[in-house]
Amino acid sequence: MIIIVDAFGGDNAPLEVLKGCQEAVAKLGVNIILTGSSQKLKDCASANEISLDGMEIEHTDDVFDIHEEPKEIIKSGKNTSMALGLKLLADGRGDAFVSAGSTGALVMGATFIVKRIKGIKRIAPSPVLPADKGSFLLTDAGANTECRPEMLVQFAVMGSAYMEKVMGIDKPKVGLLNIGAEDSKGRELEIETYKLLQQSGLNFIGNIEARELPKGECHVVVTDGFTGNIALKLYEGMGSFFSKKMKWIFSGAGTLGALFSLSKIKLLKKQMDYKEVGGSALLGVKKPVIKAHGSSDAKAFYNAVRQAAKCVEGNVAGEIEKYVSTMAAVSKE
Amino acid sequence: MIIIVDAFGGDNAPLEVLKGCQEAVAKLGVNIILTGSSQKLKDCASANEISLDGMEIEHTDDVFDIHEEPKEIIKSGKNTSMALGLKLLADGRGDAFVSAGSTGALVMGATFIVKRIKGIKRIAPSPVLPADKGSFLLTDAGANTECRPEMLVQFAVMGSAYMEKVMGIDKPKVGLLNIGAEDSKGRELEIETYKLLQQSGLNFIGNIEARELPKGECHVVVTDGFTGNIALKLYEGMGSFFSKKMKWIFSGAGTLGALFSLSKIKLLKKQMDYKEVGGSALLGVKKPVIKAHGSSDAKAFYNAVRQAAKCVEGNVAGEIEKYVSTMAAVSKE
Repeated sequence: MIIIVDAFGGDNAPLEVLKGCQEAVAKLGVNIILTGSSQKLKDCASANEISLDGMEIEHTDDVFDIHEEPKEIIKSGKNTSMALGLKLLADGRGDAFVSAGSTGALVMGATFIVKRIKGIKRIAPSPVLPADKGSFLLTDAGANTECRPEMLVQFAVMGSAYMEKVMGIDKPKVGLLNIGAEDSKGRELEIETYKLLQQSGLNFIGNIEARELPKGECHVVVTDGFTGNIALKLYEGMGSFFSKKMKWIFSGAGTLGALFSLSKIKLLKKQMDYKEVGGSALLGVKKPVIKAHGSSDAKAFYNAVRQAAKCVEGNVAGEIEKYVSTMAAVSKE
Repeated sequence: MIIIVDAFGGDNAPLEVLKGCQEAVAKLGVNIILTGSSQKLKDCASANEISLDGMEIEHTDDVFDIHEEPKEIIKSGKNTSMALGLKLLADGRGDAFVSAGSTGALVMGATFIVKRIKGIKRIAPSPVLPADKGSFLLTDAGANTECRPEMLVQFAVMGSAYMEKVMGIDKPKVGLLNIGAEDSKGRELEIETYKLLQQSGLNFIGNIEARELPKGECHVVVTDGFTGNIALKLYEGMGSFFSKKMKWIFSGAGTLGALFSLSKIKLLKKQMDYKEVGGSALLGVKKPVIKAHGSSDAKAFYNAVRQAAKCVEGNVAGEIEKYVSTMAAVSKE
């Protein structure tokens, strides 16, 4: 299996990318194609004693600037490390693509270069978030700020396929993010989506309120990209706020009691650490595209590559296509 | 000053209501009108040795069921403790009203019984949430799921008046809850609201992303009622999740180290405790109406009465009316 990796995406590129890829080659047995400046990558690898075994480099000097408009990614003439990776994926040179660059550009590039699965209306970046019981997938987490009910149903279908094939969950529970439990709650969007989800054949458990999210009571949380992005960032923000407070509580408490609690704190940190999960799958693309967190370190890159490999193995895109074509056939009857 | 209190709203009524009111009479020097079953209140007071000095009871046997449709509150013939309180407020029998009953019913009842401030389009329940630096007001936190830009601007105006007059903050900073910092981010609603807020004369600091909320960098966070409710409930949910985890970390760690950290934990708990702030002000009503949290205990009820008294003293409703009429005059020029 070949995973293409944007070597110049994210805050810690290229060093942490290289470290993560080295580990992926060693542990997962995958091959890697790195996109980006060949000289810089070789220099960085040799300066940090990183072996490039199992990796090849596709050279380009250009890097997509995170502050640029997303649509710039598809402008001809520009050959950024992200755009090159997407083109290689579209051309069949690799099986999946990982980048920690701009989410907007990656969604745009994936849509127009790699293309959508037949029948899928929109691509949805869908991170898996840590929770008290296991983890849950949030979809859409930021791409489509205005959605129609059919789009939310597709997000639910794609999220279910992902949780089943990649996370190994049988009949994933799907919840609609809403402001109350009753089916009359929410906007027109939620009321209509609720009805469609009931008929979808998915394991729809009804509305889920935001306060339930950290408990991890359902596996796929469906919402529009505006609400999803607010929820995602608040989830991350509250997590790092409490993590900071935890440090403060223990600062200066260097006693047996603190040591006793330390193992539990480590367990909690590991449980709530997004780096353990990898990145955010761009569901709806013909081939797996993973958006790694902008601040990814080596561990996060390793996990993003692992996640990409699992998407390939589980044939998530194929599963989604199969489901969507069945749905289309049913609705035509 | 007379504060009317729904003695049968919330999960812990009437005992915790009575305890909170007793403390409010003693410490704040206010008088209280309780609405609800006279016999039950007297029995509860005597069984728990609570003095009813400074309180009078307006009797009704009916209580609004939290599961009923909000519009039931304004049906004639029904005289629930909540509806009665709102009528007494409208009739000038008291200066403000506090209830821990159904938010939807309270918004509906306040709108049709007490009425809106002239020029105000919608009433917005606006809780003050604890944050690292002080606290912030979230508006709308749940009533108006579909909003127009002018409505969001009014929420910002009302929130600013509240933070200035009740919380004593000079020129409160207003942020628009959005999915990015740039003025081009968000839906049509955010893009248009951004422009209007820039011209509003308020201390508008631009878009604020959800991950910044726990830091408390701005004083008034403006959004529509759907997004606001998702943010509010996630904020509360994450708070109680981490509070639970904190307990777990310290369970069994009964040593000096744990004791050392305990004072810091108490400080953090006090800082992040919504009960310290009181309830959620229903901004836009002619007279102060405070929605106390459904699970309010005596302390929370005391603080809600204190908050109601501060709204009366600061003449928040008058300030809002003044601002809105100035705005109307300016826009007519």
